[in-house]
Amino acid sequence: MHKLPVGVLGASGYAGRELCAIVARHPGLELAFAAANERRGEKARLGGREVTFVAADDARLGDVALVFSSLPHGASAQWVARAREAGAKVVDLSNDLRPGNATAGAHGSENGAVATAISAPYGLPELGRDPIRGAEIVANPGCYPTATLLGLYPLAARGLIAPGATVNVSAASGVTGAGFTPRHDLLFGEVANDFRAYGVGNTHRHLAEMRSVLAGWGADADLLFTPHLLPVPRGILATITVPLAEPVADPLSLWREQYAGEPFIEVTSDLPALKDVVHRNVARIGVVPVQNVRVPTLLVFVAIDNLVKGAAGQAVQNANLVLGLEETAGLAA
Amino acid sequence: MHKLPVGVLGASGYAGRELCAIVARHPGLELAFAAANERRGEKARLGGREVTFVAADDARLGDVALVFSSLPHGASAQWVARAREAGAKVVDLSNDLRPGNATAGAHGSENGAVATAISAPYGLPELGRDPIRGAEIVANPGCYPTATLLGLYPLAARGLIAPGATVNVSAASGVTGAGFTPRHDLLFGEVANDFRAYGVGNTHRHLAEMRSVLAGWGADADLLFTPHLLPVPRGILATITVPLAEPVADPLSLWREQYAGEPFIEVTSDLPALKDVVHRNVARIGVVPVQNVRVPTLLVFVAIDNLVKGAAGQAVQNANLVLGLEETAGLAA
Amino acid sequence: MHKLPVGVLGASGYAGRELCAIVARHPGLELAFAAANERRGEKARLGGREVTFVAADDARLGDVALVFSSLPHGASAQWVARAREAGAKVVDLSNDLRPGNATAGAHGSENGAVATAISAPYGLPELGRDPIRGAEIVANPGCYPTATLLGLYPLAARGLIAPGATVNVSAASGVTGAGFTPRHDLLFGEVANDFRAYGVGNTHRHLAEMRSVLAGWGADADLLFTPHLLPVPRGILATITVPLAEPVADPLSLWREQYAGEPFIEVTSDLPALKDVVHRNVARIGVVPVQNVRVPTLLVFVAIDNLVKGAAGQAVQNANLVLGLEETAGLAA
Amino acid sequence: MHKLPVGVLGASGYAGRELCAIVARHPGLELAFAAANERRGEKARLGGREVTFVAADDARLGDVALVFSSLPHGASAQWVARAREAGAKVVDLSNDLRPGNATAGAHGSENGAVATAISAPYGLPELGRDPIRGAEIVANPGCYPTATLLGLYPLAARGLIAPGATVNVSAASGVTGAGFTPRHDLLFGEVANDFRAYGVGNTHRHLAEMRSVLAGWGADADLLFTPHLLPVPRGILATITVPLAEPVADPLSLWREQYAGEPFIEVTSDLPALKDVVHRNVARIGVVPVQNVRVPTLLVFVAIDNLVKGAAGQAVQNANLVLGLEETAGLAA
Repeated sequence: MHKLPVGVLGASGYAGRELCAIVARHPGLELAFAAANERRGEKARLGGREVTFVAADDARLGDVALVFSSLPHGASAQWVARAREAGAKVVDLSNDLRPGNATAGAHGSENGAVATAISAPYGLPELGRDPIRGAEIVANPGCYPTATLLGLYPLAARGLIAPGATVNVSAASGVTGAGFTPRHDLLFGEVANDFRAYGVGNTHRHLAEMRSVLAGWGADADLLFTPHLLPVPRGILATITVPLAEPVADPLSLWREQYAGEPFIEVTSDLPALKDVVHRNVARIGVVPVQNVRVPTLLVFVAIDNLVKGAAGQAVQNANLVLGLEETAGLAA
Repeated sequence: MHKLPVGVLGASGYAGRELCAIVARHPGLELAFAAANERRGEKARLGGREVTFVAADDARLGDVALVFSSLPHGASAQWVARAREAGAKVVDLSNDLRPGNATAGAHGSENGAVATAISAPYGLPELGRDPIRGAEIVANPGCYPTATLLGLYPLAARGLIAPGATVNVSAASGVTGAGFTPRHDLLFGEVANDFRAYGVGNTHRHLAEMRSVLAGWGADADLLFTPHLLPVPRGILATITVPLAEPVADPLSLWREQYAGEPFIEVTSDLPALKDVVHRNVARIGVVPVQNVRVPTLLVFVAIDNLVKGAAGQAVQNANLVLGLEETAGLAA
Repeated sequence: MHKLPVGVLGASGYAGRELCAIVARHPGLELAFAAANERRGEKARLGGREVTFVAADDARLGDVALVFSSLPHGASAQWVARAREAGAKVVDLSNDLRPGNATAGAHGSENGAVATAISAPYGLPELGRDPIRGAEIVANPGCYPTATLLGLYPLAARGLIAPGATVNVSAASGVTGAGFTPRHDLLFGEVANDFRAYGVGNTHRHLAEMRSVLAGWGADADLLFTPHLLPVPRGILATITVPLAEPVADPLSLWREQYAGEPFIEVTSDLPALKDVVHRNVARIGVVPVQNVRVPTLLVFVAIDNLVKGAAGQAVQNANLVLGLEETAGLAA
Repeated sequence: MHKLPVGVLGASGYAGRELCAIVARHPGLELAFAAANERRGEKARLGGREVTFVAADDARLGDVALVFSSLPHGASAQWVARAREAGAKVVDLSNDLRPGNATAGAHGSENGAVATAISAPYGLPELGRDPIRGAEIVANPGCYPTATLLGLYPLAARGLIAPGATVNVSAASGVTGAGFTPRHDLLFGEVANDFRAYGVGNTHRHLAEMRSVLAGWGADADLLFTPHLLPVPRGILATITVPLAEPVADPLSLWREQYAGEPFIEVTSDLPALKDVVHRNVARIGVVPVQNVRVPTLLVFVAIDNLVKGAAGQAVQNANLVLGLEETAGLAA
């Protein structure tokens, strides 16, 4: 089978490495370049293949069918534009082009101006595939928004979130979510045996993205998002409390109905755990009604691998759609 | 200095072992017996001393000033009564005698009937020491209630929790909270790299205790409590979302004021982490206002060591009060 | 493609589960039964499929092409015989039939007598495939012997191990090597943050197997084997010190030469790490000469996943050979 | 009680922080300064006290009774000299002044020249206290040498190590041994679930120190030292294989005899584990004879906390001796 050449920008971070690994095992894609300026010339073994990082300026953007940009927020949009000019389609893993961020990014910076000028569909296929299929650029969702929005969608689509209420998202992520740049607070000696919140009080960078999508659904609810750092390498668990507009008799059936036939959604009558989802491109969802509270309330639990369904796996899922390949190609469900 | 003899029932579990270890280093207490039926005759090194477990029936309850009962829920009350008959004071670490449980336990069982007949003050000294000082029996709080109630008290005492609202407690505990009995789901191979919720939907056994105390404060709020299992040996972090009756200008000052002079409460402008509190008899509390929500809301974070301030350390703190010793004796702040 | 039906006995342990998971993804095999007496009727999700455990007596041994026995040592040989009588080929993961054990096991027990009567080639394909290809029963190697023997073979084959010397194997294994049966010492709270040796002084059950193979190679060396328990779920690293009969100029070339073309051996100029091999059916080998010692000495480092190349993966590799399938089918290199 | 003022240079690393924490709880010492150039002005909570780091040049060396230097190797000796000139005694935790290193360091560098000119006794009190008691400068041992030499001393002192043999030390250390400087390979995401050797082939910097002491004992043996990196924050386990000059009947009695009365040595008939020693200033030693080898051989296992008995705890033990305090003051046995 002929394989389509793709490239990765920002290939040496955790999401970039995961992308290279997934592409290496993909039946329809082959890795044409893996760019990482700070590590140019270094080799890494990813997905069973040896990869040599090149400088971004040496990446032949015009020779590939699609570019994955895993560059940092605030630096990615410009490279998206360069790749498009060279003729490649793009899946952008930064938050530059995501809903709620594109215009917000335009603080006079060049990258912000570029971001504002680009219109890209939001790449959460389970919310709608058509805009993605026809797109030249896709804004790949953040890890926390992926978990949160997949959990909330069946309720929002049915107008079941109580108007004016606060949806409370308490989430916890493994440390690869914080990136590969060495920092004191990410050393093994600091993270092991610890647990703590961060980015609290509704200050996290992913809030704009979640709020924007939620508003697009017409949900009149506030969002309160509190992330925590887990002493595990991978995985996100979102524990979402949703006050309901009215009681729901068989809540799990809403998720089963909404996601029937979805290859990458698992609705479970158990409670999802990180162990169920790591290294897989799935969101695993459990739903539990809350006893002994006056407002009818549901607890929605969503587990994903932050590097797979929360980043690189979903990016490949989007690339498959954009390139007309089988949506599940190269992805472990 | 003369040391008062104390004994431990249920000494081979995690809380029991921690009790033996703290007593071993306590300047005013000495361990007269450590009872653990299933492990009678076995030795363990606890707090730098070798301890030999004896059968509970061989424990000389009448020879000690105080008995710590770390027996399982549903079995402890009867031993509390036996120890009292023998003349010893008692700190009971089970939930048999805690508010909301004593009567609930009386499902016709003998232990339940005994529990119902006993009246014991709640041993959370920071909520009030006088009832503890004069008591012959103290009901030592649960680990989650300790964290949750210490976090909520300054708001409840000021009538600041919004009437009719739901206080959302998302908490995570290290595995020693689940006990020392071997179970598949507590094996290292199962817990490592994992994170999951359990006891969800307001079904956890600690809810009655928390609700009862909250009601006693006159707070008209629902409680929604969702515990999670962390891949760490020790520590609890409670992330508490509190809708307020009215906005609060300088929220942290409420906790500083409430707990001024408390030796075992740390109010911090940082976010508390497990690492700050493990092996210490402290509750570390941080408070953050929430932006961009319509209802004025605070996030309260409380970290404790589930085996120390959440169990054995607090039990010794209560024993110190009951026995007229310095409250801080033998306890690492 | 037509898939050959296979069954697993002892399917609920860690190796049994891994077998079910590998078979679930194997292009040429399908799982006909997963037997686990103590868990009969329970369901598990393995390799993306739901498996329901059956009683061993209900397993239709005659309907499958091959049976994997992952039963405990001392209980497996009898089931191997039953499966053979029913017409199935067998890969036995216990040590009942391994070199050095078969006769040793016959302490008057029925299983021991059966084991003694069975002759089965040793299933370490990289030491020779022909006996495996034609076999009806294969004795799948132990995890530590796999690592140790693959490390030593290139030296032994060339007569380079110093006669009369002691080969020192210091090895460390993840906890899944100790099995899925709940034990106090395997609880997360006990294993986390710890490291210790066990089975020391040349008392480990794998020694007979290693010695027997080593003697078969004509190596006149003593073996000193010291295993340790690592706070990780998976992986073995063997650190092997080999006194040499004579200095070797370019030691790594011996391993490269010996294992040229082997799909599941990686010879590296780096030091192998667990991270390189977990979830893969490979042995990764590094070799370093020792400075400043009088006897010419090599350090050989071998990393494997104890559940894959050290158990279930190798068992499938052997099954592929026995059944005439591609040796690498269904196995991640 | 009057407390002697002491200072710490290099206070922000793991050993420096541990020193500050031990001093904070020491009944006879008080912390006058904690110097850390890169973190000057930052605060840290150490041993229950808040410490503010100062620049080394601002440390008032002349105002303290003793300076602990926890500066990097190659930079410490000069500061030892400066502290001595200012009148302070010094415990140096670097390897600049340790046996086998002092002269080796003098590669024309200024620090090396200073190191060569200083003569300091080796601060492993269990090998002899008299030289330490009278010293103005003490060379505090390395972590691996502490474990290895305490394990070997009883055999070496009796001439029981086989002449010409190789003593094989396979050791594993928690990550704090690698320091607090952020590095990719020390991130939680890299270290968790991993295990690997490093500094192999007799190239580790601690070898000169171990060899020099061993030679001073008159032992004619080669040393082969292979360290490994453990996914735990703290602790070292050394697994030492010793070929004997002659068989030893009751080996453990040698260690019991040698270390009788030692407050910080635990000789055990069990196998020592990291869990037994973390946060304690002890070396825990177990000894096992090896079966089925031609050369009579012992396995000696030694566990220490690399930051306590392997660094800061031992440094305070030495300071206690130098300053005429109780040797055990401020140290948890």
